[in-house]
Amino acid sequence: MRVLVTGAGGFIGATLLRLLHARGRIGERPIELLAAADQRLPALDAGIAAIEGDLGSREVRSRIAALAPDVCFHLAAVPGGAAEADPALSRRVNLDAGLDLFETLACAAASRGGQAAPPVVVYASTIAVYGHPLPEVVSPSTPTRPPMTYGAHKLACEVVLADYSRRGLLDGRALRLPGIVARPRAPSGLVSAYMSDVMHALKAGESFTCPVGPEATAWWMSARRCAQNLVHAALMDAAAEAERAWVLPVLRLSMAELVQTLSQSYGVDGPRLVRYAPQPAVQAVFGRYPPLDDRAARALGLRDDGTATALVRRALEPGFEDPHEAPAWR
Amino acid sequence: MRVLVTGAGGFIGATLLRLLHARGRIGERPIELLAAADQRLPALDAGIAAIEGDLGSREVRSRIAALAPDVCFHLAAVPGGAAEADPALSRRVNLDAGLDLFETLACAAASRGGQAAPPVVVYASTIAVYGHPLPEVVSPSTPTRPPMTYGAHKLACEVVLADYSRRGLLDGRALRLPGIVARPRAPSGLVSAYMSDVMHALKAGESFTCPVGPEATAWWMSARRCAQNLVHAALMDAAAEAERAWVLPVLRLSMAELVQTLSQSYGVDGPRLVRYAPQPAVQAVFGRYPPLDDRAARALGLRDDGTATALVRRALEPGFEDPHEAPAWR
Repeated sequence: MRVLVTGAGGFIGATLLRLLHARGRIGERPIELLAAADQRLPALDAGIAAIEGDLGSREVRSRIAALAPDVCFHLAAVPGGAAEADPALSRRVNLDAGLDLFETLACAAASRGGQAAPPVVVYASTIAVYGHPLPEVVSPSTPTRPPMTYGAHKLACEVVLADYSRRGLLDGRALRLPGIVARPRAPSGLVSAYMSDVMHALKAGESFTCPVGPEATAWWMSARRCAQNLVHAALMDAAAEAERAWVLPVLRLSMAELVQTLSQSYGVDGPRLVRYAPQPAVQAVFGRYPPLDDRAARALGLRDDGTATALVRRALEPGFEDPHEAPAWR
Repeated sequence: MRVLVTGAGGFIGATLLRLLHARGRIGERPIELLAAADQRLPALDAGIAAIEGDLGSREVRSRIAALAPDVCFHLAAVPGGAAEADPALSRRVNLDAGLDLFETLACAAASRGGQAAPPVVVYASTIAVYGHPLPEVVSPSTPTRPPMTYGAHKLACEVVLADYSRRGLLDGRALRLPGIVARPRAPSGLVSAYMSDVMHALKAGESFTCPVGPEATAWWMSARRCAQNLVHAALMDAAAEAERAWVLPVLRLSMAELVQTLSQSYGVDGPRLVRYAPQPAVQAVFGRYPPLDDRAARALGLRDDGTATALVRRALEPGFEDPHEAPAWR
């Protein structure tokens, strides 16, 4: 089974690629991995084919069409802050390139003919499809009112992907990802970068200036758990679902709770190292995430990190394996 | 004030163009009319400039940019049935060309500089953004699950237009139009063509085979009322609205009620002329429209045809003027 990961050079893409390569299969089926990125990919593990170039280019799409993937994880994106600064770039990458990719995958599968199931497309959407202020509880019926161009373009892709699913040309599953941790400490274009930076700082025993207050609640998920959910999304039985997009179950933690967990995990004095200097703009968007009605996603088998401690360790220790985890989720 | 109407060669576009030309103004401001169409436009009234060509072409967009309209009514579209038959055409016309037009209008306004208000874009969206079965009542919080490619592409445009509004580059107002009557009797690519055909047939005293049953309830609006609502949408104060898309208030009539009204209006024996032969596919989509919670739209001044009789006369008699109508709505 051919499996394409776009955005394979990115933070989540690289995590997913490692997970898929280590497993060598999705469910019962052995996989052949294709990694697409608009940048030079680092040396890939043996057996992973690289497709380097602009996903929006005809040449890259032709290569993808020739390979006709059975499963595609579409992660390539310009992140939130960068998209807001350059909406034309966001349209090209976050909207047009996604729509072109969907068409390429559908056409490639159709041209193979036969009665094979349509390609599965797991689409990395975003909780930024919701507006703010968010309602008391976010549920599957919460209206979508993207407060940033990033969320608007992702939502438009969701809508079109659902239409491909309706027509039976693709089997689309959109996951609305929360902020994922712990990103490398480097400029990422993400307003939520502080969520990762505080984790690296406290693990290293360094001080940190936090742009939200201690009471600010956000939704948390480790990159590894995110990758596990993406793989699960490719397998889960979504045929009977009215919706084709889900918010992942998440841990809802205040910054103070996270700092406490980091303090315990790494034996540091978090409350002393962290200085809270809330920035109103960051606090308004990222400081007030409400409870999430994630029953629909849980019923399909999607899951959060379990505990704050497991979140922290999964996020900061690449080799961490949770002994309480079911084998299929390791 | 420069006013652009796209899809000016179409049924609603032509009705809107006539209305705008007859009025010569929107609100208090005199207008200069620009009519865009991908076909040769019929002889236009004096003073209306024609822009003929593919809205998706750089040349047409350059002409629009040079004219920098203050208001745009974007009606150009491939209709539902035709879009479903050719999704690639629908993407080009219903999605990409719309997004390119929004960008053109925003850039043209920005390049004029100054502190002028952003261009108003009244976007003809569709009730086909909702899925079926529809809920007991359709309200502003009804989730959008387009059951056809046409609705999916229109919804994606709505999402992107709302983002331009959020950024203050355009002032977008999307109206989700119901089936509009009475279209000329010609192949239109619309599954809902029967709604117009039954009106023409009974007015002419001809028999008609109806693809939905007598109890089938649909949402009805005349083209003239639709055009009046589009103009009103350009004027209404939407600044405080959380949503940028509205379903128009509509008359909800069963086919039997419509046939009765036509019978009375034109002195024909409708029940004898109409043979009901429900087609399950048509009945499933067009036969079960529920009540509509249209209070938000009414509060903004949008309105339905008033009575079934006024609907029929406005739809079938070009010269009809309702004496009970406020002058601003004539």
